Amino acid sequence: MNVATPLQRPSPISPSVDFDADGVQHGFLRLPYSRDDSAWGSVMIPITVVRRGDGPTALLTGGNHGDEYEGPVALFDLARTLKADAVQGRVIIVPAMNYPAFRAGTRTSPIDRGNLNRSFPGRPDGTVTEKIADYFQRALLPLADIVLDFHSGGRTLDFLPYAAAHELPDKEQEKRCFEAVAAFSAPYSMRMIEIDAVGMYDTAAEAMGKVFVTTELSGGGTSSAKTVGIAKRGVMNVLRHAGIVAGAQALGPTRWLDMPSSECFRFAEDDGLVEFCVDLGDAVRAGDVIARIHPVGRTGQAGAEYRTALDGVLAARHFPGLIKTGDCLAVVATAEDKN
Amino acid sequence: MNVATPLQRPSPISPSVDFDADGVQHGFLRLPYSRDDSAWGSVMIPITVVRRGDGPTALLTGGNHGDEYEGPVALFDLARTLKADAVQGRVIIVPAMNYPAFRAGTRTSPIDRGNLNRSFPGRPDGTVTEKIADYFQRALLPLADIVLDFHSGGRTLDFLPYAAAHELPDKEQEKRCFEAVAAFSAPYSMRMIEIDAVGMYDTAAEAMGKVFVTTELSGGGTSSAKTVGIAKRGVMNVLRHAGIVAGAQALGPTRWLDMPSSECFRFAEDDGLVEFCVDLGDAVRAGDVIARIHPVGRTGQAGAEYRTALDGVLAARHFPGLIKTGDCLAVVATAEDKN
Amino acid sequence: MNVATPLQRPSPISPSVDFDADGVQHGFLRLPYSRDDSAWGSVMIPITVVRRGDGPTALLTGGNHGDEYEGPVALFDLARTLKADAVQGRVIIVPAMNYPAFRAGTRTSPIDRGNLNRSFPGRPDGTVTEKIADYFQRALLPLADIVLDFHSGGRTLDFLPYAAAHELPDKEQEKRCFEAVAAFSAPYSMRMIEIDAVGMYDTAAEAMGKVFVTTELSGGGTSSAKTVGIAKRGVMNVLRHAGIVAGAQALGPTRWLDMPSSECFRFAEDDGLVEFCVDLGDAVRAGDVIARIHPVGRTGQAGAEYRTALDGVLAARHFPGLIKTGDCLAVVATAEDKN
Amino acid sequence: MNVATPLQRPSPISPSVDFDADGVQHGFLRLPYSRDDSAWGSVMIPITVVRRGDGPTALLTGGNHGDEYEGPVALFDLARTLKADAVQGRVIIVPAMNYPAFRAGTRTSPIDRGNLNRSFPGRPDGTVTEKIADYFQRALLPLADIVLDFHSGGRTLDFLPYAAAHELPDKEQEKRCFEAVAAFSAPYSMRMIEIDAVGMYDTAAEAMGKVFVTTELSGGGTSSAKTVGIAKRGVMNVLRHAGIVAGAQALGPTRWLDMPSSECFRFAEDDGLVEFCVDLGDAVRAGDVIARIHPVGRTGQAGAEYRTALDGVLAARHFPGLIKTGDCLAVVATAEDKN
Amino acid sequence: MNVATPLQRPSPISPSVDFDADGVQHGFLRLPYSRDDSAWGSVMIPITVVRRGDGPTALLTGGNHGDEYEGPVALFDLARTLKADAVQGRVIIVPAMNYPAFRAGTRTSPIDRGNLNRSFPGRPDGTVTEKIADYFQRALLPLADIVLDFHSGGRTLDFLPYAAAHELPDKEQEKRCFEAVAAFSAPYSMRMIEIDAVGMYDTAAEAMGKVFVTTELSGGGTSSAKTVGIAKRGVMNVLRHAGIVAGAQALGPTRWLDMPSSECFRFAEDDGLVEFCVDLGDAVRAGDVIARIHPVGRTGQAGAEYRTALDGVLAARHFPGLIKTGDCLAVVATAEDKN
Amino acid sequence: MNVATPLQRPSPISPSVDFDADGVQHGFLRLPYSRDDSAWGSVMIPITVVRRGDGPTALLTGGNHGDEYEGPVALFDLARTLKADAVQGRVIIVPAMNYPAFRAGTRTSPIDRGNLNRSFPGRPDGTVTEKIADYFQRALLPLADIVLDFHSGGRTLDFLPYAAAHELPDKEQEKRCFEAVAAFSAPYSMRMIEIDAVGMYDTAAEAMGKVFVTTELSGGGTSSAKTVGIAKRGVMNVLRHAGIVAGAQALGPTRWLDMPSSECFRFAEDDGLVEFCVDLGDAVRAGDVIARIHPVGRTGQAGAEYRTALDGVLAARHFPGLIKTGDCLAVVATAEDKN
Repeated sequence: MNVATPLQRPSPISPSVDFDADGVQHGFLRLPYSRDDSAWGSVMIPITVVRRGDGPTALLTGGNHGDEYEGPVALFDLARTLKADAVQGRVIIVPAMNYPAFRAGTRTSPIDRGNLNRSFPGRPDGTVTEKIADYFQRALLPLADIVLDFHSGGRTLDFLPYAAAHELPDKEQEKRCFEAVAAFSAPYSMRMIEIDAVGMYDTAAEAMGKVFVTTELSGGGTSSAKTVGIAKRGVMNVLRHAGIVAGAQALGPTRWLDMPSSECFRFAEDDGLVEFCVDLGDAVRAGDVIARIHPVGRTGQAGAEYRTALDGVLAARHFPGLIKTGDCLAVVATAEDKN
Repeated sequence: MNVATPLQRPSPISPSVDFDADGVQHGFLRLPYSRDDSAWGSVMIPITVVRRGDGPTALLTGGNHGDEYEGPVALFDLARTLKADAVQGRVIIVPAMNYPAFRAGTRTSPIDRGNLNRSFPGRPDGTVTEKIADYFQRALLPLADIVLDFHSGGRTLDFLPYAAAHELPDKEQEKRCFEAVAAFSAPYSMRMIEIDAVGMYDTAAEAMGKVFVTTELSGGGTSSAKTVGIAKRGVMNVLRHAGIVAGAQALGPTRWLDMPSSECFRFAEDDGLVEFCVDLGDAVRAGDVIARIHPVGRTGQAGAEYRTALDGVLAARHFPGLIKTGDCLAVVATAEDKN
Repeated sequence: MNVATPLQRPSPISPSVDFDADGVQHGFLRLPYSRDDSAWGSVMIPITVVRRGDGPTALLTGGNHGDEYEGPVALFDLARTLKADAVQGRVIIVPAMNYPAFRAGTRTSPIDRGNLNRSFPGRPDGTVTEKIADYFQRALLPLADIVLDFHSGGRTLDFLPYAAAHELPDKEQEKRCFEAVAAFSAPYSMRMIEIDAVGMYDTAAEAMGKVFVTTELSGGGTSSAKTVGIAKRGVMNVLRHAGIVAGAQALGPTRWLDMPSSECFRFAEDDGLVEFCVDLGDAVRAGDVIARIHPVGRTGQAGAEYRTALDGVLAARHFPGLIKTGDCLAVVATAEDKN
Repeated sequence: MNVATPLQRPSPISPSVDFDADGVQHGFLRLPYSRDDSAWGSVMIPITVVRRGDGPTALLTGGNHGDEYEGPVALFDLARTLKADAVQGRVIIVPAMNYPAFRAGTRTSPIDRGNLNRSFPGRPDGTVTEKIADYFQRALLPLADIVLDFHSGGRTLDFLPYAAAHELPDKEQEKRCFEAVAAFSAPYSMRMIEIDAVGMYDTAAEAMGKVFVTTELSGGGTSSAKTVGIAKRGVMNVLRHAGIVAGAQALGPTRWLDMPSSECFRFAEDDGLVEFCVDLGDAVRAGDVIARIHPVGRTGQAGAEYRTALDGVLAARHFPGLIKTGDCLAVVATAEDKN
Repeated sequence: MNVATPLQRPSPISPSVDFDADGVQHGFLRLPYSRDDSAWGSVMIPITVVRRGDGPTALLTGGNHGDEYEGPVALFDLARTLKADAVQGRVIIVPAMNYPAFRAGTRTSPIDRGNLNRSFPGRPDGTVTEKIADYFQRALLPLADIVLDFHSGGRTLDFLPYAAAHELPDKEQEKRCFEAVAAFSAPYSMRMIEIDAVGMYDTAAEAMGKVFVTTELSGGGTSSAKTVGIAKRGVMNVLRHAGIVAGAQALGPTRWLDMPSSECFRFAEDDGLVEFCVDLGDAVRAGDVIARIHPVGRTGQAGAEYRTALDGVLAARHFPGLIKTGDCLAVVATAEDKN
Repeated sequence: MNVATPLQRPSPISPSVDFDADGVQHGFLRLPYSRDDSAWGSVMIPITVVRRGDGPTALLTGGNHGDEYEGPVALFDLARTLKADAVQGRVIIVPAMNYPAFRAGTRTSPIDRGNLNRSFPGRPDGTVTEKIADYFQRALLPLADIVLDFHSGGRTLDFLPYAAAHELPDKEQEKRCFEAVAAFSAPYSMRMIEIDAVGMYDTAAEAMGKVFVTTELSGGGTSSAKTVGIAKRGVMNVLRHAGIVAGAQALGPTRWLDMPSSECFRFAEDDGLVEFCVDLGDAVRAGDVIARIHPVGRTGQAGAEYRTALDGVLAARHFPGLIKTGDCLAVVATAEDKN
């Protein structure tokens, strides 16, 4: 299972679980990390393995970014409640991949400011974040048949709740991915063209031919009963769809959206206080004002107006009340059911 | 108008506006602040005065806490758009009272960590935050007949959107305050007994006999088109109610809530990942589980369950995904229209 | 029990334990603390009350300074193991008084840099540290007959292990204090004249006429099986001595030391790398070199030699390898059994 | 000499020098300062006393603000070179009053952010900076007949080199102060009305009837051979003028300036990149553009122009390349020799 | 124009200007930068392109180091005022290359501490600073015929005002560079041998055969009317010299200096307070004391004297009042017109 | 002596000493380090070379980790006292290899958080720490015949005092290393199998065939008269053993220990307050409780017990009073003389 070439160093991470043993195991991925306040310290990433006999392997992950919460809540809950006898095959659960970031409640790692989702394939002799990426790349992804990676908007973005997959060169693989998105059954489902896919976990999994599903389930660095409910239902639906857990999926209505081009994204060119004129899910028409940025140095100034370049639905927005030049202000998606 | 006794130092703050002049003036409250990166620096707090002839004075404030946004958005907007000829009397607008906190996007001042709303009556020779409080106490509040101070939950709390007033010893004054709350016409209206009122701007204004209205209009350190709409409508309603702006109020339905005792508040006694089982506005019955706190050190652990002590409505909650021992987890309010 | 004058504000701290109830209670002193990362947060200081019927009250405290560990270890352990039926009277245990400092592992509070042991009598409207001091001053000390406050050297000092009391104006009270010191039965016992007693918890307790015992039980920001053993034995000895716990004290040999004057203290007048020429407990004679400070900017430089001004025993020393001008380098105590 | 009332605590500062002994003594003012990295640490402020027989006492100070260097250079140099037999009376030299600030190279103290020159009369139980102020107030100023306190602009301001005194209610005292200014013989001499004199060392000294001289000798957080030369010559001139050192003063031409009103000061109302149109010492006429502030968020924007309100000489300016709203941009002084 | 080999990733930077369009365009180089406070944030580097028809291209840059101001002032001003019809060819203006450093007022980037002028050729998948370097290396430098990069001493160094070029292996290229230096016409002109040229923007440009001119125009982290005047005149002179702008150059006298060897540089081997004995531009003879470093731990200590190793002119010096071991204290240049 | 291939950049470090000159030289390794507070700054690493005629070279180093003190004390002392005529051959002394870390009193460099002992072979164009490693790799190690590198536990670990060498593939080299360990004659001697030797100075030296001895001489970020005595005696014994200094070694008893497998190490899986049940040097048997970790969030909780997996001696332990999940709690070594 280790795809390292002979020249590669082994990963410094050692798991305390046996991936080939039946039953439920709760353990750690131990990553040695020497530092001023602990010369022989380690990062201990919680992991659960639930296995019974032969069957497919699902790799379920949250906390790829440390400030996104629907995934960790659903997965800590699942790790605690999923019994071995409910499973045929194997479920590997890592509720908080970038564990230092998750503990700090920040997108990136407080140790090295690493954005795990831009750190693949990682390095065994790199930063802490690169070592985690390398372990997923060389040890965990090769074990999986289907990969579900939970995201939300984090502290600085807010999204409509959706599951998503990418358009892929292998159309058979793409089809299986979108079937899994449909199985997840979030209120919205998204078809994405990743503009800059370099370094992503998604890309690493897809390049190995895995079925890969991701999500955005609101944001702001919080979660709610409603959005956690979507995540819990979605993960069980995906396990049922994969044939690992028995029983019927709990499906509901979903609305399919598209982000077809870079025109979907509006970036701020002003610093200030942001006032949205539409909310997530609202329909917009090309030319509509979607937000104003008020300058805050003095009163009485006219702010800048930002308009959408295309028709669609407000699918994502800047979350904090203040905004800086260069921040993504809003994303407008096109709806497949428009008209 | 200056209530200082002869022994008190004058405020170091100097306004660049003339409170007695007719017309629209945009200016600053300049507060000298010597520091390492500017020996002769100042804090410049934007202020707008709109006056026409005689009539009552409304003092409108936002940014008492620096991470609450409905007030600043509505007031920067009002300051830019309110014309003198629409006014009979005077409107004083300070969209960001604790301006250093507002610029930093934090509840308290980055200069001295001062919580402005616990710093009254302030001190002319105190910290920067205390100097601001002192200026409102001795210079601005005495000018006002009616005071509207906008709050929201900030980065760490989320609220149902409501306007509110306090129960007061002077029942005539209390009645005028609740009439102004009704005029604001938020989706919810709250009757509050302040348990620890020491140091509050509210208390300072009420002690001078002013009509005082405050709000909580959601939270999380953001604002939306919807909540800003409530704020904009509310402030115009209050100005019309006070007779400063002409025309009919735009009233809508409101639901009256109460926070009758300390039993409304649930504090966390565990650190971890919070999972809410109900959302804001949901009805709860005494004994219901409202949230779980999952420990995050390892998987497979049962978390702690938190239950409500009384029947009511989830009126406020902890916002971030992680929670610490001692944080306020949730507030359940009783509804006057219950049953 | 509340000694506040009518003009004093009540403490903002609320206990979750009932000091008058029989049995074992584990709870919190909840101190509201509003801050940027928790608008309605609190400091939750763990407390245990063990009570059975009438009898004297012992107040046992550790973590007055947050980086001293023998007290917290012995008191968390005692809080867990002491049964109500082993007690006649009451034992109040606060293993970590300056709880924010204790959690941070620092002498002073990370919130306000407050040194709790220089903050008495405190203020109900002061800093977090001052609020804790005020609560001990007005709520807990008045409940106590005997007070045992554990100290060690912390991260920057190291001490011979001793229990200690102060010379007091009331010789009867002083006698009872030194009897309690003898009961503690540490390897060393110290007679102290506090040169600057202003603001100390010791002084607050002594001024109320309490029997007050303190300790220094090594240091360096750590503890050992040996020093924890001294603390555990000492606290049980004191409870037996006070008649709260039945049974014979476990006494051992102790050596009595004195710090008669400011000549005992040697302060560094150089920055550098410190080399001690004698270790704790070693005998020294006036004029002996006790340490050298090597300059570290370049090699080949003669360092400064520091000599003792009097005969005695090295009782305390600077702990870290580097030293700064103004740091206390060493303390030489005189031994009552000398010659 | 100690002016403390019976209710005042003694200063915690202890000097290692004897102010009444003849000869040259180099020592410290030791101020105990307990902190996380040194439980029994101290601030050690270097001091030199040079005394021979009876005569007046001069108190010479630098480093009142920690980033101003002409004074410290001249005074460390003088402390090293002044011989007792060159003196009749006493010279007390403290080259770096706010020693923690001086070591950090910052205006204010890194310990408590205290601005020593706004901390008088200080407090014996206050912050470190307040304890230093209290010691000067109650121990050192009472010893002095003449006080020379060196200032420069520090890191964020730049000044024409001048010595200065204040207009005082006691015209006889004022006259003696200006005679000392003239004796100093800097290239410029300034007549100042202090607008906000509360908390200043100057005010403390003047209120005791002392002859008080201060300076501004350029700035930017540096010094040059030229400006240090002015300081060295000035201090010797003042000692000769006071009759403490024998010999003739080295006098040169000086130009007398005035800061008659708050119109002299121009504050920035914009953030940005500052471009001065005139340099220090240049003559300006009311209405002249003295600086532009370029916005830096984008190119192609017109900046704001700042004009002088009166005729005079550019006497001080903001030093760093960037400026913030509220910073003092420039000071224009009027010249007594104008026209 | 893109010199990347097929294996190289494209730059993540996207310009909002069209380098091939005629007219004046103000825009941004947008560099995506995901971080904790903006998940989809960007660095937006202002850029101006002024083009009319065919002709040579000048690339004008400031803010390579973020605390050097003559270049940014002259270039923000030029970007605002240069009209297309004044140009034949193209002028590309980037007033603040290392824009994050420029906004912070620091030499290196606050994001990654990158020194842009040691980061060439950069990396498209490296740090933010390396991405900027890569964009200049692969996108902007290839467009240019002549490159003028403004430097000054920044916060920690001060220089005589000079334009400079390097001795180069291609003597024809070197000649063209020095002709451009002469055209700039600063008060001083410098011939440099770069001892460690690895990673410099200079080296990158020179290696592509470009005419490259740089400057040092004083320092200290400020600018003055005089030094900005030199920069403004210099840039117009260079554009005229290049034939892009018509008209005669405004030439003045210049003095040619040399830095022939490492003997020119004096490094501090002591920490302390620096006292310069000569100022910039003063003549020195081998063996002269140019500065003293006073120890600051106590008074009465002899400081260290630093002497020049060769005859010449003080061309650069350490700027702040305090100095650390290893800091460059002074640079003595030899004058071509000496004798 | 420079082993760099033609493609490698030269080291930026320049020594001020001549390694081939006879006599005693005190100097610096100067490493240019440009930064915000010193544009042309350097790190100046003190070095001493003592040489007389031909003979072997010993390279003696301390401060590889910046918070370990026995080595620096012994080596600053040796550098000051070792005379050239006491030597036959050459002694190169670098008391503080990772000098920035040593000045900060931290394990890793405050500049780049580099752990020097995991940075070999280093890079001439890397971080400051990598540049230091590269200079030892390419310039100093090649000069040496025998290398003695002092370590202790630092601030976060404590060890029994021992000298140590590694098991090596070249048994002849291994034998010479252990002979040098025996010559050092510490109270304990250790035989080590390095589990992860990548990047260590040890490995770099051993790979060049050098005789390499290292130590652990207690810890906690301090030193004592006793442990410094071991270091001073050890280094002289090694120099005598190598034939560089004449005279007999001062040998004492030593106890040989082994760390045969990863079972020796116990890592914490809980956060909390650590209570050791045995001290360093105590004998333990498999299954013994060696420590408890008390949870600190509330009183009355049972902590976790940690047991040893094998018989042996407590050889190392976590030092600070608090511990985090993942920290090394304890190391049990097996004793060769057991039974």
